[in-house]
Amino acid sequence: MEVTNDYVYQLDREYVFHSWSVQSQIDPLVIAGAQGCKLWDYQGKEYLDFSSQLVNVNIGYAHPKVIEAVQKQAQELSMIAPATANLARGEAAKRIIAHAPDTFKKVFFTNAGADANENAIRMARIFTGKSKILSGYRSYHGNTGSAIVATGDPRRIPNEYAHGHVHFFQPYLYRSEFYAEDETQECERALAHLRRVIELEGPDAIAAVLLESIPGTAGILVPPQGYLKGVRQLCDEFNLVMILDEVMAGFGRTGSWFAFEQFGAVPDLVTFAKGVNSGYVPTGGVMLSESISEFFNDHFFPGGLTYSGHPLAMAAIIATLDAMDEEKIVENAASIGANVLSSGLAALGEKHAMIGDVRGSGVFWALELVSHPETKSPLALEKVAAIKMDLVKHGLLPFVAGNRIHIVPPCVISKEQAMQGLNILDDVLGKHTI
Amino acid sequence: MEVTNDYVYQLDREYVFHSWSVQSQIDPLVIAGAQGCKLWDYQGKEYLDFSSQLVNVNIGYAHPKVIEAVQKQAQELSMIAPATANLARGEAAKRIIAHAPDTFKKVFFTNAGADANENAIRMARIFTGKSKILSGYRSYHGNTGSAIVATGDPRRIPNEYAHGHVHFFQPYLYRSEFYAEDETQECERALAHLRRVIELEGPDAIAAVLLESIPGTAGILVPPQGYLKGVRQLCDEFNLVMILDEVMAGFGRTGSWFAFEQFGAVPDLVTFAKGVNSGYVPTGGVMLSESISEFFNDHFFPGGLTYSGHPLAMAAIIATLDAMDEEKIVENAASIGANVLSSGLAALGEKHAMIGDVRGSGVFWALELVSHPETKSPLALEKVAAIKMDLVKHGLLPFVAGNRIHIVPPCVISKEQAMQGLNILDDVLGKHTI
Repeated sequence: MEVTNDYVYQLDREYVFHSWSVQSQIDPLVIAGAQGCKLWDYQGKEYLDFSSQLVNVNIGYAHPKVIEAVQKQAQELSMIAPATANLARGEAAKRIIAHAPDTFKKVFFTNAGADANENAIRMARIFTGKSKILSGYRSYHGNTGSAIVATGDPRRIPNEYAHGHVHFFQPYLYRSEFYAEDETQECERALAHLRRVIELEGPDAIAAVLLESIPGTAGILVPPQGYLKGVRQLCDEFNLVMILDEVMAGFGRTGSWFAFEQFGAVPDLVTFAKGVNSGYVPTGGVMLSESISEFFNDHFFPGGLTYSGHPLAMAAIIATLDAMDEEKIVENAASIGANVLSSGLAALGEKHAMIGDVRGSGVFWALELVSHPETKSPLALEKVAAIKMDLVKHGLLPFVAGNRIHIVPPCVISKEQAMQGLNILDDVLGKHTI
Repeated sequence: MEVTNDYVYQLDREYVFHSWSVQSQIDPLVIAGAQGCKLWDYQGKEYLDFSSQLVNVNIGYAHPKVIEAVQKQAQELSMIAPATANLARGEAAKRIIAHAPDTFKKVFFTNAGADANENAIRMARIFTGKSKILSGYRSYHGNTGSAIVATGDPRRIPNEYAHGHVHFFQPYLYRSEFYAEDETQECERALAHLRRVIELEGPDAIAAVLLESIPGTAGILVPPQGYLKGVRQLCDEFNLVMILDEVMAGFGRTGSWFAFEQFGAVPDLVTFAKGVNSGYVPTGGVMLSESISEFFNDHFFPGGLTYSGHPLAMAAIIATLDAMDEEKIVENAASIGANVLSSGLAALGEKHAMIGDVRGSGVFWALELVSHPETKSPLALEKVAAIKMDLVKHGLLPFVAGNRIHIVPPCVISKEQAMQGLNILDDVLGKHTI
């Protein structure tokens, strides 16, 4: 039987229950295959990827070195319990640590980003003997019972079944919560606010501050330069663990290996997933600082999971990180950001009144769409959905979140492809008025 | 460089943070490769597997059809977002539903068992509009924030950061909580107890009863014949969702596709992972009944995850289930249970005074070790650890939990291998006295 778009679509609609949706209202796109930054369906219709799926295929699709590594590992040993010592697991952990600041010593592997955050929270609670976790209202840390309550965005609300999670406001100059007029003021006031929250929640009750280095799904909210450094100082002053969630921002997305490197602050725990092996095999994990790692040398750690350090996922990590080094893929992301997306998106912002704000770094950018440039009212979601549909029709896959289009192509995107995508964006936005 | 046991061991100790342990007190076994029911290290020392790793490699190691499917899918398309329609995902969901009772219609895929339970709980809460979840004290449902609190065993205690979870006592005749003298009495009293808990917690506040069909890590506690049927009746009477966790017991382990088939009760939601693809690629999921599936046709479902329905994991599911059908692997598990393990373990129980109880089904058995057959005092954990080390030394990998040895080989084990394992057990137990 020849496979058709229709067959795959019907099969999906009959048997597959979808995430984050009303099942009768979805219309899934059929994808047959992909290579580099391109995807296609069974009719040969092609799409240029400005989404990296869920902002995770950093190395692009069907990278030959990663495919080969996965195939080889599948032949050798797909699955072995986390309690054993496994070559691929050790080599993957070694490589991750090699790309991190010197203060990091060990890796705990998980299935994905949500349970990476779960385990970082668990480590921080046990390490400090304290329980509250402070995290941002504008954040996404995963959908499991505790991770979802650590989450700030509205997906948290129907899922609030954990406790001890307190949310605070992060810097976001375009919609400042602090009446700030510039980045310096926004930074100072956001830090003063966090200090007040720490004081009033009680430093002796707080285990950790958990933040995405650059909040991703919440809007690619690049923090002002001094912010993460200020958070580090507050954590030191009040004896709190600093956890940075690099699930979306890590492994090249921002043009550096880790996003926090761009802000001069080193956390105690880093959570990761997505880009570490570009999602070729599900995985995630936590990098532990020396002091936390040593603490657990003689304290029990009550966490674990069947697929922790799964050899197939580990083989994909090794091949992905090696290829990213050899092919200078992180440098490419930085260059595309600095030389194409930065100016190209700024030009779109000048041209299209509906673009209220442009912000980002590397291949991690957001266009914030508004109905009135002055009031900054978010563009109605039906209008955003219409733009999204039109982009797909024109062969560009965007990542849309709320009233924003996120420009998040694979880190391997070429200058030509990036410009091609910007041109489609320009055309489509021009057809939709506010 | 030639890879040695020592190299892999040192690499692991330096970089890998381990689950459920004090890091300085572990001594991980090095595994280089595996085939069928055998594993080996870099020196060629072989092990016969009575563990299936974490009771998940049901189809055995390096099954050629599963390897081939994973390799082929890696070439075609490793990763695609859950919001798309994907051939492998649709085919995997269709096959899972084909093996389930007719009342099941759709599958929601997760990364593993923990988030399968998270999502089943989420579905039950939204479907009923109620919040409490009743689950057993003797249970393990995963290690994420809510799943761990749904868990009954002591790993829950340091992780209690969710609410609305109430625990009750399940049937366990060997250590009856109900002063029962036979299975019938244990069943009746356990159901009466559950009814009292439901009445006193308030049926209008309870969303679901969550149970492993056969509690696994808690001790392979095969319920009396009428128990799950009785739970089903209570759920119907009080309008509660019945969730059965088949993460460990499902997909052939007990000698049937699902363990609940042996007890004449059909739940509303079934969670699975492990055996569905024998862990060749991390995955898990929830099977939804028609009524819950239809409810979400016009109600929003607030859950999701990046790797939901990951094509590589889906390809492994398809190949695993097809191979299990073609090679009659579930039938083999049933036959090994009925013809070798049942009588063989019973004979060991007669011979060795430290074996207090023998129970199980298919390739899912537990030996409960005691220091006094009459008082049933659990054998001291140091003694259990010494027996475990001795078994490993003799080339048999057991699964040890508390004071129990679980006999949980791959479903593909041959009669000869099963008998070889029983002989090693017999020899080793004979050297350790109580």
